Amino acid sequence: MKTIQAASYPVHFQEEAYKKLSNLIVKNDYSTIFILVDENTFEHCYPKFIPNLETNKRIEVIEIESGEINKNIETCIGVWNAITELGGDRKSLLITLGGGVITDLGGFVASCFKRGIDFVNIPTTLLSMVDASVGGKTGVDLGVLKNQIGLFSNPEMVLVDADYLTTVTEREIKSGMAEIIKYGVTYDIKLFNEVKLNKGLHINELIFRSVEIKNEVVLQDPKEKSLRKILNFGHTIGHAIESFYLESADKENLTHGEAIAIGMVCESYISSKLLNFPETKLNEIKEVVLSIYDKINLLKEDFSGIMELLKHDKKNVNGQVNFVLLNDYENHKLDCKVSEDLIVESMEFYNS
Amino acid sequence: MKTIQAASYPVHFQEEAYKKLSNLIVKNDYSTIFILVDENTFEHCYPKFIPNLETNKRIEVIEIESGEINKNIETCIGVWNAITELGGDRKSLLITLGGGVITDLGGFVASCFKRGIDFVNIPTTLLSMVDASVGGKTGVDLGVLKNQIGLFSNPEMVLVDADYLTTVTEREIKSGMAEIIKYGVTYDIKLFNEVKLNKGLHINELIFRSVEIKNEVVLQDPKEKSLRKILNFGHTIGHAIESFYLESADKENLTHGEAIAIGMVCESYISSKLLNFPETKLNEIKEVVLSIYDKINLLKEDFSGIMELLKHDKKNVNGQVNFVLLNDYENHKLDCKVSEDLIVESMEFYNS
Repeated sequence: MKTIQAASYPVHFQEEAYKKLSNLIVKNDYSTIFILVDENTFEHCYPKFIPNLETNKRIEVIEIESGEINKNIETCIGVWNAITELGGDRKSLLITLGGGVITDLGGFVASCFKRGIDFVNIPTTLLSMVDASVGGKTGVDLGVLKNQIGLFSNPEMVLVDADYLTTVTEREIKSGMAEIIKYGVTYDIKLFNEVKLNKGLHINELIFRSVEIKNEVVLQDPKEKSLRKILNFGHTIGHAIESFYLESADKENLTHGEAIAIGMVCESYISSKLLNFPETKLNEIKEVVLSIYDKINLLKEDFSGIMELLKHDKKNVNGQVNFVLLNDYENHKLDCKVSEDLIVESMEFYNS
Repeated sequence: MKTIQAASYPVHFQEEAYKKLSNLIVKNDYSTIFILVDENTFEHCYPKFIPNLETNKRIEVIEIESGEINKNIETCIGVWNAITELGGDRKSLLITLGGGVITDLGGFVASCFKRGIDFVNIPTTLLSMVDASVGGKTGVDLGVLKNQIGLFSNPEMVLVDADYLTTVTEREIKSGMAEIIKYGVTYDIKLFNEVKLNKGLHINELIFRSVEIKNEVVLQDPKEKSLRKILNFGHTIGHAIESFYLESADKENLTHGEAIAIGMVCESYISSKLLNFPETKLNEIKEVVLSIYDKINLLKEDFSGIMELLKHDKKNVNGQVNFVLLNDYENHKLDCKVSEDLIVESMEFYNS
């Protein structure tokens, strides 16, 4: 599979990627290679990865606890201390092997350690392959506020190997599908139709095309001044719902994809009200989402808590929530102001 | 006084600087202005600063506890939470008003908040005026390891007003003199002679020339690949001594300048042994240092603890401590390896 050239680094795929990684390590003559894992990727992915890593450098594994709840500064402090105790220096390399928590947190940890060491991302979930592998966003949560602390910082390379998907659950695979749907409806309707018709088939191609799209978008607008905002479609409401479920002790957490899928239905509804996004397409999006994800019943009494979190969205300016909405498939409008009432109505539409 | 143009931002001096700051705020139409202070700068500097700030934007003051001991991630978390609770968004501006702890920590906090908001540094101590105002280094300590966590990140502008020096102690002024001596011996012997002959006179000129020198060095080598390493003269041993005193409960802390002054004497001694740095100049440096700072008695039983900290220096690679040493005044050699014995000997020379 071809290589995709991102801003300042390549995304390599499948077997070829491991050779490139070995070359990188030789070229930069790293002092030590740190591999950041969680208990799951250490058990399931590390044994697949390590035989492919050809190097005589010292390798140190650092394990953190899995889960979004651990994507915080306290975990970063633990990793910084571990790297310090293991003798990490400015010529160290950090390889992140895991899902979005590992790649986002690991990238941030590397970028801040001694004012920055090199890192390489190896996403092992569908979500992190299609979303976190390109774009240079690193970060951690602050309390329930997602990615509140972070940086734009690029890895030396990204290694995408769909074989790692055999290590994750069906639910996690589905979590990544939401981003693929997003790329489809905002940027490439052919991709959306692929998902609609073939659910889960051709996974290699779906990943490759998603990375290609994300890369095209990010190269045009690395700092999210305009076009890149389309990647937030579904995420404004989706993130708030995800955070709300995360902080509600009595609710089971939603995966990122489950929350973003709801967010896309809501924001498509708002699009239909404010921008005349066609109703048939709105219903099509809802149908595809509900064909993949179980319906969640959003409770009326939770709406105000979700609204509260919406107001903390990173993209807000002067307290005004900013949405990216759809005029049509592949046709968006940035910086739309939406009333609270309409946001509530959109959640009722999802429920209906 | 003229403006100095750093990499991507200007350093403005005295009255003129406040006009430039007001212009910046108008131009960028910030949503809120956060001012980071400690209890001392809030009491003594803020009342000098605020009448000069012409703006109708919302202003929020965030106060942290003074002292190097608070230059850590926990303090950052506190500031991030405060900015969040006060409704900070991506269009917020953070002004740091204080010494190196405030400017280093504040720059890091701003650079990581929602992946980066603008910041302006207003150094209020001599040390931060001549050292932290140019160079883009931000960061905090990890345990006793200085600036272990941080970034290269540039402010929008720096405002240097020597009037703030009336708010600090004589000891703090002296702390800044060590950096001026460093610029002198490594880069501009005329500046060193100024310090030697006029101790404390012409402070405005000493500051201006120091910022100029630092800027020249940083512009040539922003990422500290070669020339910029001369700014570490005296800092390899100096930092270790500073950290050691900081973590020793039974010792009074040294100021940065007091520790770096000792470090310069030690590293000049090592220079004389390894590079034939002239003995008369070695003695001249020691003499000037001891004319400004009280002699500290470094205890033999502390040498091993100081050595231990030296091994964690950020600049080390593969466990090898790297020194920048002097062939002569204004003439340095990078990446010198030094034996433990010679380091100990240099501390004994300082003691003698």
